[in-house]
Amino acid sequence: MDRRREELIAAALELFSRHDAEDVSIDDVAASAGASRALVYHYFGGKQELYVAALRSAAAELQARLQTQGEGGPLEQLSSGLTRYFDFVEEHAAGFAALLRGGPANRAGEIGEIVDGVRQRMLRMIVHQMGVDAPGPALRVTLRSWVASVETAGLDWLEHRDMERAELERLLVDQMVALLRAASGHDPGVRVLLETLLPAVNS
Amino acid sequence: MDRRREELIAAALELFSRHDAEDVSIDDVAASAGASRALVYHYFGGKQELYVAALRSAAAELQARLQTQGEGGPLEQLSSGLTRYFDFVEEHAAGFAALLRGGPANRAGEIGEIVDGVRQRMLRMIVHQMGVDAPGPALRVTLRSWVASVETAGLDWLEHRDMERAELERLLVDQMVALLRAASGHDPGVRVLLETLLPAVNS
Repeated sequence: MDRRREELIAAALELFSRHDAEDVSIDDVAASAGASRALVYHYFGGKQELYVAALRSAAAELQARLQTQGEGGPLEQLSSGLTRYFDFVEEHAAGFAALLRGGPANRAGEIGEIVDGVRQRMLRMIVHQMGVDAPGPALRVTLRSWVASVETAGLDWLEHRDMERAELERLLVDQMVALLRAASGHDPGVRVLLETLLPAVNS
Repeated sequence: MDRRREELIAAALELFSRHDAEDVSIDDVAASAGASRALVYHYFGGKQELYVAALRSAAAELQARLQTQGEGGPLEQLSSGLTRYFDFVEEHAAGFAALLRGGPANRAGEIGEIVDGVRQRMLRMIVHQMGVDAPGPALRVTLRSWVASVETAGLDWLEHRDMERAELERLLVDQMVALLRAASGHDPGVRVLLETLLPAVNS
């Protein structure tokens, strides 16, 4: 990869993380990277492409952090994954909030694809951590719901910050167990899964 | 309101509900409404404005449907509200899926605001149905999570359709109860709320 391009993306990500995208200009990114405006245009053509590149980079960073293998059973790994997720949310606060509240200009649907890709990879990671091969419909809906809950909780936390972050993370783990209990009434396989998960969290 | 404009919006909503926005042209909308291309431009200036107007109309329609007073206690009202929500999802399938997967062109963030407005009104309706005055942080996060779950379940159902819709709706009501149980460990007020809700569903 081109190193100059990477530096521009890093500068853009830093700015898009701390400000609304409308308030970040190509000139800001150039100044922050110690580059010329012309160089930014050379690599990215415009702000939309730069935003998409920064978002891809953020998504890759989040994925790398979540993939770090935690200690313990699946629910402990879920818990430590949540801590890393909320670290990421906090570091990219303005950009995360703006993106998930609706996001800036998006012609080609690329932004939606990136966001959707993050959700799908989170889902696959959780399915893998839980040792599930092929989730049935009730479990799939449940885990997708939980991923959406985590995203929503991230937004809510940035807006209100009226709970301790650690308590919010515990609430989300409790939500996972609660959601799996609800799903177990619809799919006996989830009941078996719950039995394997719950001893693990008490060990 | 201008009746011709309303007819164009209705035609646009019908098309945007059944097709991806990229596949709907101004000419399609004009033809479907028996209007000229010039008239569409006269009222809306372009496809983006027409899309936003159609989306606002869909959001108002969804809200009107959800506000219909159901019978019974809060959980029964939740259940009948879910049926009306999924009717709406089904009738606007392509548009709903495209919008929530990331959505089409959106310069001003209006689309995000409309989607966010729907979520906020759903949240307020549920808070009201449950007879809660001012939800604390744990309850607020829980109810927002549930609204996100419903949206996600709507998307999942359009993609897979491998559960009965009625069963998916029951799963979501079970999720609400399960999520409130999880929240009750974080806020004693939610425990009291649960006690008032659960007798109601068995009556």
